[in-house]
Amino acid sequence: MTATGLKDMLGREGLTPVDKAVALLLQNLTTLPLQREILPLPAALDRILALEILSPEDLPAHPRSTMDGYAVRAADTFGAAQTMPCYLEIDGEVAMGQTPEGKVQQGKCFRIATGGLLPEGSDAVVMFEHTVPVDASMLEVIKSVGSGSNIIHKGEDISKAEMALPRGHRLRPQDLGLLAGLGITEVEVYRRVKVGILSTGDELVHWSRTPEPGQIRDINGVVLAGLAGRAGAEVTDYGITPDTETAFFESVQRAVSENNIVLFSGGSSVGMRDLGERVIEKLGSPGILVHGVALKPGKPVIIGLSGQCAIFGLPGHPVSAMVCYEIFVKQALAQLSGITAAARKTPVLQARLDRNLNSAAGRLDLVRVQLLQQEDDLPLASPVLGKSGSISTLSRADGYFFIEESLQGLNKDTEVEVHLLS
Amino acid sequence: MTATGLKDMLGREGLTPVDKAVALLLQNLTTLPLQREILPLPAALDRILALEILSPEDLPAHPRSTMDGYAVRAADTFGAAQTMPCYLEIDGEVAMGQTPEGKVQQGKCFRIATGGLLPEGSDAVVMFEHTVPVDASMLEVIKSVGSGSNIIHKGEDISKAEMALPRGHRLRPQDLGLLAGLGITEVEVYRRVKVGILSTGDELVHWSRTPEPGQIRDINGVVLAGLAGRAGAEVTDYGITPDTETAFFESVQRAVSENNIVLFSGGSSVGMRDLGERVIEKLGSPGILVHGVALKPGKPVIIGLSGQCAIFGLPGHPVSAMVCYEIFVKQALAQLSGITAAARKTPVLQARLDRNLNSAAGRLDLVRVQLLQQEDDLPLASPVLGKSGSISTLSRADGYFFIEESLQGLNKDTEVEVHLLS
Repeated sequence: MTATGLKDMLGREGLTPVDKAVALLLQNLTTLPLQREILPLPAALDRILALEILSPEDLPAHPRSTMDGYAVRAADTFGAAQTMPCYLEIDGEVAMGQTPEGKVQQGKCFRIATGGLLPEGSDAVVMFEHTVPVDASMLEVIKSVGSGSNIIHKGEDISKAEMALPRGHRLRPQDLGLLAGLGITEVEVYRRVKVGILSTGDELVHWSRTPEPGQIRDINGVVLAGLAGRAGAEVTDYGITPDTETAFFESVQRAVSENNIVLFSGGSSVGMRDLGERVIEKLGSPGILVHGVALKPGKPVIIGLSGQCAIFGLPGHPVSAMVCYEIFVKQALAQLSGITAAARKTPVLQARLDRNLNSAAGRLDLVRVQLLQQEDDLPLASPVLGKSGSISTLSRADGYFFIEESLQGLNKDTEVEVHLLS
Repeated sequence: MTATGLKDMLGREGLTPVDKAVALLLQNLTTLPLQREILPLPAALDRILALEILSPEDLPAHPRSTMDGYAVRAADTFGAAQTMPCYLEIDGEVAMGQTPEGKVQQGKCFRIATGGLLPEGSDAVVMFEHTVPVDASMLEVIKSVGSGSNIIHKGEDISKAEMALPRGHRLRPQDLGLLAGLGITEVEVYRRVKVGILSTGDELVHWSRTPEPGQIRDINGVVLAGLAGRAGAEVTDYGITPDTETAFFESVQRAVSENNIVLFSGGSSVGMRDLGERVIEKLGSPGILVHGVALKPGKPVIIGLSGQCAIFGLPGHPVSAMVCYEIFVKQALAQLSGITAAARKTPVLQARLDRNLNSAAGRLDLVRVQLLQQEDDLPLASPVLGKSGSISTLSRADGYFFIEESLQGLNKDTEVEVHLLS
């Protein structure tokens, strides 16, 4: 795929292919410093580790039983079977939460529960189910065990100095569990990315107001705030800004000074595009990185960088704005959040296209779909048709897939990779 | 699949097949009343709609332009082409956010921007790119348009009284966008489900404390709180409760009186199982629904219902506890959250097993896996081996798949459906 020959509708060259635009964006963000903070364990849920974590100790710290039963010397049980049981003297009991007293001698055993610390002398546990108590002090063992059976060894879960979690990893509940198990009570994570959101357009009114004829309620502010908030950003909503260059410049300038990422929407259709471009250039270097991409919907997006703040001029149509968020802003937010590229992959779901679809070569087409479960086959991907100004099509969509730049369409029954909008 | 012939290791029948246990659980929860509350739009993100929402109006309320260009009578442009343009008089302009003044007469047009309200008389918009201005008052049109071109009709996004969102739907950012567009400023949603969490076991200490030999740090409390919190529940952590029947009963009783779901872990291994059972039965009817399932790991789970509170006795091993959460608690939480069964499906990802795996017939095996991306093929699913007491195996896992009860294993290269632990 190359930019050569990609022209916009005015015949101007310069529409940037999507993967090139993403690469250019991320490359420009790599130099930006990421800030860190230290958080206690529960508050660190879903945050991104700023440092690799090595295990400070062996887990478990001592060998433990993984079953309810009897701690034995495995050799004492060799040959034991239903038809030829062996007999062991019950010589003690491991109390939960305590160090066992005494030592398991040859021909003897200790009662032990799951999680109990393996007493000295023993090297295996015979499950309760494979024993028959003869009396209070004598046990019949009806199945032999090998050394190490039904125990978890010292350091078997994770050993001292082993890597517990890599830098750039998002802390899931089970990861907090591992840290808790290791006695790590606080962790260094990256700070939340600050995202400022503005809507522009003289026709817009806040969604809580009743629009006059000719006016419409602002939709993008709500959608973008929800998307960025869910992704872990600290969102500031700067509301609706008038279309005049002075007012718009001042609003964006303020937002840029207070955030790591600024999103404005509505200022990047052909008519408004120059204003967005001028304002980004005026805010300082490096300025515009990309204006116009070979993507449908979403073509008129503008991407810029002013000092350490990434600026996105998103199309005003709700569908186009959300598509540009998904393809460009999400990546930038992930990178500035400190998530490693490897950990940034979003799951895709295989589905089968339910009709023939046409597409123009030379641009990436994003197709919204509903997914319909099928018996004994992949789910059906059914395109949600509708204009890019139609918010209901986004609300009806379960996800989207791409038609590559090199293709002029896809046939019914083609397998497609659906990115979920969940 | 049937329960007949499913026996536990003591030869006792009564291990319930997993799908039967889930069905029994959900069936018992259907009768419980769900509470509701009214929330303003932004606060309703990720909450579950308690009522179907019908559109109160047409969106858009008036036909609008979807392009920058000129509002025309389509018939005036018929036959227009690059080689044979037609000429229209520019008779006005639609100001953004205003009702257009006047009417488009035959042979005339109005300048209009994207989102502009279509002026009376016109029925289409010619894109700016398909025109050449002759002078300030005359336009050359080089491509004809059909009636309705480049406009979005009144009610085309969604029409009055059409269903906007179904009951039981989780409100995503794009759904809030639709509601904002329709001027719906608050919605009735189900209340958050209250989940109380207890850990039991005399060997447990809080993860912030240094364990003595024989003691271990509580892991399940952190993991379960994270999982339930992420799923939208209001979580109360009741900490670690002693194993004695009196103390344990009082703790569970208090948690049951304050929550919709109570999870205790550690009290359901063979040794502790009777205590958990006795306590649930003592708390009142209907009591125990399931004790012991044909599942590995997770077999000793106990599921009960006391009045309107679901009670889960989860195994003490972290892996088993999380598996039982994934299979049973998650479903109960979704149902008590008001999410419809159809909306409850979790995405699965097709992957290819990287080795042969054995499994015992008659029980459902849950296999944790790491996913490794491959060029030109499904990702590889590589089982994460390790004991069910090993929390690091959960932290290393990207997801899990099942080996069905009827199978004795799976061959290398089998396609498996991986549920993501993201």
